[in-house]
Amino acid sequence: MRDLLPADKARRERVLAVIRERYRAHGFDEIETPVMEDYDRLHAGVGGDNEKLAFNVLRRGLDADGVRAAAEDPAGLSDLGLRYDLTVPLSRFYATHRGELPSVFRAVQIAPVWRAERPQKGRYRQFVQCDIDIIGDATGRAESELIAATLDALSALGLEGASVRINDRRALDAMLEAFGFPEAARPAVLITIDKLDKIGAAGVAAELRQRRADEAAVGQLEAFLGALPAESARGAFGPAEIRSRLPEGVPDEVVDHLVSVGDAVASATGGVAPLVFDPFLVRGMGYYTGTIFEIAHPLVSYSLGGGGRYDGMIGRFLGQDVPAVGFSIGFERIVDLVEVADRAAAPAVVLVHDRDVPVAELLAHKAALVATGARVRLEQRTKNLKNLLARAEADGYTAFATVRAGAAPGSLEPQPLG
Amino acid sequence: MRDLLPADKARRERVLAVIRERYRAHGFDEIETPVMEDYDRLHAGVGGDNEKLAFNVLRRGLDADGVRAAAEDPAGLSDLGLRYDLTVPLSRFYATHRGELPSVFRAVQIAPVWRAERPQKGRYRQFVQCDIDIIGDATGRAESELIAATLDALSALGLEGASVRINDRRALDAMLEAFGFPEAARPAVLITIDKLDKIGAAGVAAELRQRRADEAAVGQLEAFLGALPAESARGAFGPAEIRSRLPEGVPDEVVDHLVSVGDAVASATGGVAPLVFDPFLVRGMGYYTGTIFEIAHPLVSYSLGGGGRYDGMIGRFLGQDVPAVGFSIGFERIVDLVEVADRAAAPAVVLVHDRDVPVAELLAHKAALVATGARVRLEQRTKNLKNLLARAEADGYTAFATVRAGAAPGSLEPQPLG
Repeated sequence: MRDLLPADKARRERVLAVIRERYRAHGFDEIETPVMEDYDRLHAGVGGDNEKLAFNVLRRGLDADGVRAAAEDPAGLSDLGLRYDLTVPLSRFYATHRGELPSVFRAVQIAPVWRAERPQKGRYRQFVQCDIDIIGDATGRAESELIAATLDALSALGLEGASVRINDRRALDAMLEAFGFPEAARPAVLITIDKLDKIGAAGVAAELRQRRADEAAVGQLEAFLGALPAESARGAFGPAEIRSRLPEGVPDEVVDHLVSVGDAVASATGGVAPLVFDPFLVRGMGYYTGTIFEIAHPLVSYSLGGGGRYDGMIGRFLGQDVPAVGFSIGFERIVDLVEVADRAAAPAVVLVHDRDVPVAELLAHKAALVATGARVRLEQRTKNLKNLLARAEADGYTAFATVRAGAAPGSLEPQPLG
Repeated sequence: MRDLLPADKARRERVLAVIRERYRAHGFDEIETPVMEDYDRLHAGVGGDNEKLAFNVLRRGLDADGVRAAAEDPAGLSDLGLRYDLTVPLSRFYATHRGELPSVFRAVQIAPVWRAERPQKGRYRQFVQCDIDIIGDATGRAESELIAATLDALSALGLEGASVRINDRRALDAMLEAFGFPEAARPAVLITIDKLDKIGAAGVAAELRQRRADEAAVGQLEAFLGALPAESARGAFGPAEIRSRLPEGVPDEVVDHLVSVGDAVASATGGVAPLVFDPFLVRGMGYYTGTIFEIAHPLVSYSLGGGGRYDGMIGRFLGQDVPAVGFSIGFERIVDLVEVADRAAAPAVVLVHDRDVPVAELLAHKAALVATGARVRLEQRTKNLKNLLARAEADGYTAFATVRAGAAPGSLEPQPLG
């Protein structure tokens, strides 16, 4: 976890303001949930590995006997926890408030989440996620709106040229079935396939054999990977292109859904859809049920965000399945890539005063300048005026004036700094 | 704790944007600290009663033996906690980053805090505080800047006409000494005096006697309260007025400090200082060392915020005292009193479409309108179109257009709603 000093905080808020504004333009409504959720909800098995990383909150009013009892049943120690993602809270929120929300609900959440990860460079235990989700729409319209809105937000931040790698969990499942992996083995096989980018086809086959996966199926997968054409060109996203990267046996409806998303994103972005079909994209979370996607950008080797369809999760809280799909921007990954100018850009004036200027005069000068729309900071003169002004300039101040006792309020004429 | 639905979230963000913008104009810089602080820091005795209300976070990796050991020493169960205020984290922040901050540091923090209070109507266990603080300035300039900035922020929200009740802990202490209360008894006496508004002079005297306070001192206090002139007029804040409400024995420097703040606020607000001297204002927190103040407003009977000088707290974290004074707006108390218009006010258009319009056409229409600066929501036509449009209007949409298959993008002509 870390503190945000003024310059960092201001930078981050400017980037967040752009994202908020673009998502709002695309019809998404911002909501907020409490940072804590019930322990049982956070540990219901829908959060995958992140559940193990939850910060749990100590139950209030536990006496020594209560603590001793909890040694046998640790669940007694905690009744709340900090959210580790924004998807589980959103599903709970939708189940609670469904009657007050539009039938197709487009939500934005921009908020911190917490994970008790081992400290390592560049990773924090508190970090901000920017999620958009569409709940109540089973058609490809939902994926298309999410992708178009996210590409627009990234462009507004100067990150034009992003691509979206896309796949469908149903295609993955049909593929593993076609190769002959038994249903029970498939989740473990996916964990290995997820490493394809890092360890290559030979590495995947070796790991699967080491884990004693079905040999015939591994051979089929290996042969398929060996014969796969080079990665599709960005935007080559027709049914033939998609079929050329899949074995027999993947249902038409899955391919049709992907193609409809590609066509819609192409018309939203006014040309070629920046989509790349990747039949071996897995994404870690167990709750995905359909399309899955990730943002790639030529500037960086890592993904800038991702998401997918999770039609089963809301049913866990509501008792009735509702289709849902979400897209999360990795805010901490993009904030250092972009620079957003300060749009407010009001004049910012430092008033340098001697020790003997009465406080009432100082406040009158300050009020007169604030009333003109300026941002104003008082600074008592120090020996090294140059340092003082350099510091103010680094803090975003653009002008200064010297205040002497007895000057009339409104009579100051600020000079440009620097 | 509660969820914020879109309309509420938007309202709150608009109010916060005004507060942020005014505080920024007055030279305050926004910072952010993690929601969790070390357990020992939160329970160091500076947080007063709020420490008991902290949500503590369960230590990670505790096994059954660790839990059993913690039954004897409950501190072993928790190493972190959620902040219960923004003052303790700010003091820790300043101690950590002093070298990177200006010598007089003006901070804004707008952030949630958590207290495990018993659930009751209108009180939440997660709520937002808006604090400004000035660290490194022992003069009345600091109080004056805080008060002028806060009055400006309230005015910008339409809450003109606020007054600030003000007192000084040193005056209270000198007064209790003059009446003859022994030093050790004074903190308990202050707790009773804090109820003066509710139980009156007779009630205060009765409670002190019941608690076996020094009888001669109680008699002196009672006589003094009985002879006290009626509350000062707003703005009557000269030295004579202040002296007329104090017994002999209060040092001149305390009265001079108050008068300098009054003069400076008067010149900042362009006339009469909206200050009221209240020699029996106490404010609960034990960490105050000088001026203390509260906002009163004719619209409501409760205080809209308050603050004071806490010159001793930063020394607890830094090992060296640094003067500090803060002012906290009770955001949850004002957000329902005010209405801030949506300044962005871009056109907001609902696109009503039949089921058979291809997704690619829908997204093209949406993109064309978004590109004009509009906010756009897609809605599939339902039987009851009137309900659908009424719902959209309630959500802030101002126009609608009907989309038919085959229409050219950009050809839609939105009609006003309502």
